[in-house]
Amino acid sequence: MSEKNNQDFAKELANIDEDFSRWYTDVVLKADLADYTDTKGCIAIKPYGFAIWENIRNYADKLFKETGIKNVYFPVLIPESLLQKEKDHVEGFAPEIALVTEAGGEELEEKLCIRPTSETMFSVLYSKWLKSWRDLPMEYNQWCSVMRWEKETRPFLRSREFLWQEGHTIHETKEEAVARTVKMLDIYAKIVEEMLAIPVLKGVKTDKEKFAGAEETYTIETLTHDGRSLQSGTSHYFGQNFTKPFEVKFQNRDGREEYAYQTSWGISTRLIGALIMAHGDERGLKLPPRVAPVQVRIIPIAMHKEGVLEKVEELKNTLNKNFRCEVDSREQVTPGYKFNDCELKGIPLRIEMGPRDIENGKCILVRRDTLEKREVELANIEEEVKNTLEDIQKSMYEACEKRIEERTQVALDLKEFEEKINKKQGYIKAMWCGDVACEDKIKDLTGAHSRCIPLKEEKLSDKCVCCGKEAKHMVVWGRQY
Amino acid sequence: MSEKNNQDFAKELANIDEDFSRWYTDVVLKADLADYTDTKGCIAIKPYGFAIWENIRNYADKLFKETGIKNVYFPVLIPESLLQKEKDHVEGFAPEIALVTEAGGEELEEKLCIRPTSETMFSVLYSKWLKSWRDLPMEYNQWCSVMRWEKETRPFLRSREFLWQEGHTIHETKEEAVARTVKMLDIYAKIVEEMLAIPVLKGVKTDKEKFAGAEETYTIETLTHDGRSLQSGTSHYFGQNFTKPFEVKFQNRDGREEYAYQTSWGISTRLIGALIMAHGDERGLKLPPRVAPVQVRIIPIAMHKEGVLEKVEELKNTLNKNFRCEVDSREQVTPGYKFNDCELKGIPLRIEMGPRDIENGKCILVRRDTLEKREVELANIEEEVKNTLEDIQKSMYEACEKRIEERTQVALDLKEFEEKINKKQGYIKAMWCGDVACEDKIKDLTGAHSRCIPLKEEKLSDKCVCCGKEAKHMVVWGRQY
Repeated sequence: MSEKNNQDFAKELANIDEDFSRWYTDVVLKADLADYTDTKGCIAIKPYGFAIWENIRNYADKLFKETGIKNVYFPVLIPESLLQKEKDHVEGFAPEIALVTEAGGEELEEKLCIRPTSETMFSVLYSKWLKSWRDLPMEYNQWCSVMRWEKETRPFLRSREFLWQEGHTIHETKEEAVARTVKMLDIYAKIVEEMLAIPVLKGVKTDKEKFAGAEETYTIETLTHDGRSLQSGTSHYFGQNFTKPFEVKFQNRDGREEYAYQTSWGISTRLIGALIMAHGDERGLKLPPRVAPVQVRIIPIAMHKEGVLEKVEELKNTLNKNFRCEVDSREQVTPGYKFNDCELKGIPLRIEMGPRDIENGKCILVRRDTLEKREVELANIEEEVKNTLEDIQKSMYEACEKRIEERTQVALDLKEFEEKINKKQGYIKAMWCGDVACEDKIKDLTGAHSRCIPLKEEKLSDKCVCCGKEAKHMVVWGRQY
Repeated sequence: MSEKNNQDFAKELANIDEDFSRWYTDVVLKADLADYTDTKGCIAIKPYGFAIWENIRNYADKLFKETGIKNVYFPVLIPESLLQKEKDHVEGFAPEIALVTEAGGEELEEKLCIRPTSETMFSVLYSKWLKSWRDLPMEYNQWCSVMRWEKETRPFLRSREFLWQEGHTIHETKEEAVARTVKMLDIYAKIVEEMLAIPVLKGVKTDKEKFAGAEETYTIETLTHDGRSLQSGTSHYFGQNFTKPFEVKFQNRDGREEYAYQTSWGISTRLIGALIMAHGDERGLKLPPRVAPVQVRIIPIAMHKEGVLEKVEELKNTLNKNFRCEVDSREQVTPGYKFNDCELKGIPLRIEMGPRDIENGKCILVRRDTLEKREVELANIEEEVKNTLEDIQKSMYEACEKRIEERTQVALDLKEFEEKINKKQGYIKAMWCGDVACEDKIKDLTGAHSRCIPLKEEKLSDKCVCCGKEAKHMVVWGRQY
């Protein structure tokens, strides 16, 4: 960057409305979030991208711990035989597994999988540790990376290796396990809505779309700028599907042996993809203040004039007491370049300050979300910054909410479904009979997958949008990334 | 644990002075720090063990960031060809590599290594990003797991997979790179001495013991209860050893191309092993307050008597404002069992409180380090706990320091060396000519490796302890884990 000229940054990005997919990759690379590596399908998360993940992780971890979750770390390698113990699970994951076959200069007797997820490892360890109902619940979580050998990859959204947390819990009763599953969904919704400023759709996956081995998969879905659906967090109720084959059993209160009831739940660096795709615009990234690594960047104007840099540093130190603030004092680029860079990186608030501003005891605030410019008194700066950041957080949520509303449509028959989604990509609400054949047909015809049966149930008609038979549920459909 | 009787816990541990090695494993398993898994040589870190790691990690991460280090995450898989670019490096690590050869149902064209360390991956990415001297330094770090296929493993000390941080930096000049190498060593010493209450020996490794590919390896060494040496953190200066083959170059201030100067540095979950081995006693683990997940555990006496549990909860809530405090209110075990459990887990301070104590406005404090019991006024409890925890932290450091002093001996010839280390295992200070043949001979004869040439240089004589020729350095030697 250091040697680049002061050119129009926006021109370096693909047009967001013409080629959203390329715009996305451009933003990932040019805003310094991540880069490609020599390991195909795996990205390097750069400091700016990783700082976003740290903010999400720290907030999530705090919320988890408040509900009694404890962190652990279990092996990244899982013996192949363990993975094969639950039939649906192995069928779901086998095609995406990476295998270690040689180690320490020798061929291994048993191949080892790099974990694609750790239900099997947690189950076998829980079976070792669980004795009595008094040991329950066991509610453990790990922050780690997982590996799924995807054919098509895209930074953050679908990477062969990605960072996530996987929580795995076992319980004395079905009711407790279901309650934990739902509670985690609520926590995920809170993280995405309150921190990332993205409204979520909460619901249950259909059998076809649920996790390999789960009884029920709960999901939060978000909608991208171009109206595609992103599965942004899932929480699974397993019943005894794993605890039976893995013999995770305990002596219950009646002194009898019983298999435990299990859950798992995860969010990943995919949330960074959701963030870019929900808020970004033609100038680049747009970060909500709560998750932004830098909330305020101060750009000195005429910075070689006496006193400017000192004043700017002073302001930074004042703001750093309550905000994440930095100064862009690079010498080799112009203020114009710095404004563009600040916008590209999605920094919520920019402060411009030059000799005249200092003389008048003022500075200029520029919001990233609306690009609104405002002169404020330096005397009130802390209050102004606080209020503006809060307003940005709120406005970004509302803007996103409005877009989702505009892109949510109802369809009562297939023709309407097809026309509406082709005209304006987004969520389609439509009734469904419960038959996977209709799900498949809708997908083939429109490219839309069932996203979920929303927790807030709705009834649009009595008939399945596809076959016209009696409808069981209202389903939200959408094309996905 | 829930169904265990109130037996003497200490009897469950091997005798610390007779079989330290088994004592260590007993503590790891019985204090619930970690367990073995179905993946041979890889452990599962349980909540209590992981909470220790979280405390170390959070403190270290804060110290790193204060000096400008930024976190990133780079791929766990490294193409075999990348690892082979630096000759010494690949020779050092090749025997311990785990290889992915199949993925997504197909044989891979190029085998992928699970990272044993990431100098190669960082170098290739730095070469992509570095253009000008203005981009320097680049100082990145990642918290991740690495894999080294060891033949003999031991929980925390030598595990095939372990958690660590690896920092990798590149600089404009040799001086800056060396300064960063030394600064990181100082930070590691601070973490181990101030948080883990273990005095460290700081020094430089001999050529034989240095990291594969390094110009200089700086180390902090700690000493175990039984007088063995543990390499507890290392910081490497690479010069241009990696930047040349990886072409990590920049335009310098004179407009000419130059290769960057590089460092790397790491600490790992091995520090948990160091902690157990430095402080533990016949009753189990002994944790310094600053790193202890639970600093105070309150044990109610006659807890079914009216008001006891309420009072104990009230005390916990008071203490939780400034300390990590919990109550052991299990019904199925006796207070005696709880005392033992508290000692086994190494909780620094235990509070006993029963109906009579409550009546008198008092409670009993029991220190884990000295087992000293003291009655204190509930009215002063916060001050008492604060002072006692501070004193425990200090006393534990001093006890460790005293043990190291006792186990540090000087040898002027080989016979003395052998006799002294056999009689009292520990550090042996002895002069060395700089010849690897002498290093090898000493090792074969005494089992002691050169630990380091201490940063604080000393001179004991003019002659090498082994060959009698002119000595170059005073070296500290020791048997290792």
